[in-house]
Amino acid sequence: MKVARFSAGAGARYGIIDGDEIVVLTGDPMFNGFETTDERLPLSDIKLLAPVIPRSKVVAFGRNYAEHAKELGNEVPDAPMMFIKPNTSVVGPGDAIMLPTQSEEVAFEGELAVIIGSIAKNVAEADFESVIFGYTIANDVTARDLQKKDGQWSRAKGFDTFCPLGPVIETEFVVGSQSIRTTVNGDLKQDGTVDQMIHSVAAQVAYASAAFTLLPGDIILTGTPAGVGPIVNGDTVDITIEGIGTLSNPVRSIAK
Amino acid sequence: MKVARFSAGAGARYGIIDGDEIVVLTGDPMFNGFETTDERLPLSDIKLLAPVIPRSKVVAFGRNYAEHAKELGNEVPDAPMMFIKPNTSVVGPGDAIMLPTQSEEVAFEGELAVIIGSIAKNVAEADFESVIFGYTIANDVTARDLQKKDGQWSRAKGFDTFCPLGPVIETEFVVGSQSIRTTVNGDLKQDGTVDQMIHSVAAQVAYASAAFTLLPGDIILTGTPAGVGPIVNGDTVDITIEGIGTLSNPVRSIAK
Repeated sequence: MKVARFSAGAGARYGIIDGDEIVVLTGDPMFNGFETTDERLPLSDIKLLAPVIPRSKVVAFGRNYAEHAKELGNEVPDAPMMFIKPNTSVVGPGDAIMLPTQSEEVAFEGELAVIIGSIAKNVAEADFESVIFGYTIANDVTARDLQKKDGQWSRAKGFDTFCPLGPVIETEFVVGSQSIRTTVNGDLKQDGTVDQMIHSVAAQVAYASAAFTLLPGDIILTGTPAGVGPIVNGDTVDITIEGIGTLSNPVRSIAK
Repeated sequence: MKVARFSAGAGARYGIIDGDEIVVLTGDPMFNGFETTDERLPLSDIKLLAPVIPRSKVVAFGRNYAEHAKELGNEVPDAPMMFIKPNTSVVGPGDAIMLPTQSEEVAFEGELAVIIGSIAKNVAEADFESVIFGYTIANDVTARDLQKKDGQWSRAKGFDTFCPLGPVIETEFVVGSQSIRTTVNGDLKQDGTVDQMIHSVAAQVAYASAAFTLLPGDIILTGTPAGVGPIVNGDTVDITIEGIGTLSNPVRSIAK
């Protein structure tokens, strides 16, 4: 089932995608369940929004595909490499990634994103599915120059608009050999499969929830395959994960 | 004016401290202003809570007192060293700091904490006071061994209970030569003044808000003076900042 958060002129609502229409739900399905209303809207009449705005955090794992770690000249880490992006970095499908004036080199990173569905602390790997609401697609946008300069990645990965999410939540996704592909202006840049992760989604949920309580709507970004590269004003980044859809975002400079 | 968030059996409310009583406010003063009710409660009958739960993030600056940077064998950084603690790490005065089983060395770090009062992006240093609601005290609790091992500090500084805040918000605090002192079980460990910061509060607000939008209730931890050290099960950490008060927290092991 594909669930989307959308706007049709008024505030944000949730719905279930049904062909070229959306069936409107009574509230946020993470808290209200999947109770449908009689309202159906054509997809062409709505704007899809970021499927969630985390109440707490976007947890992310770095260097979690071996070929990507190597392409940046890094060793493949033994332990998971965890960092946090603030919820203020989240934008939706179609929203612009704004290039900050502080950076000369901003890069895309296509990733599978886990949406947490319940309060989760100390989750055993075997139980990880019980705390997952669904999966979506993320772009872990990174100011590569500032990432190297700052040491801590909070700024380089935390700028406003640096976490596009969407287009929908797939509640029935099960990690297998699904392809994850990123194009910039139609040119293929990343071409991997989500089973190439070093630390599995189960391991990531266990590791993150052993440190901090995960709240419903919190996100885990699971790492990016090889092929990352720069984006500049005017580009369009499309990230496609088989079974979920395509997250597309334009790139814009901030007027100085 | 000293503002506190408290519980008197029911949910969280806000009030203004008046001697040994608290004057109850109609709502959250960050959004409702300081409208008082007729209700007054003795301080002895209430439990003070963390003065805010950030809707987004706790932004923090590392190595911001020269003597502290040196005591850990680090250079004094040229640029601000910014990181993020999740809002799930926040606890209130009197709440226990829980020592995670993953770490063998947890340390206290007494800090002045800024509470943001309005949506803030690209704030000029000269305007920093316009986005500040008040100041409180924080303990930037850190798993020192994991901080060194992980590289990224998100886990080492992000565990649940690793951001005690309180006891109150002082809305009229102006950074000057106020003392900041930390004791463990009554023994003086940190003894500095808040004007020893390398990057001022104005510079920190400008730097953070140039990267991410700050939301009302977001927190900035401004760095810790020299004298940090380990805490163990049974300890009590008291951090006192002149003009604000004392934040006191016990330390407890998690039962294995």
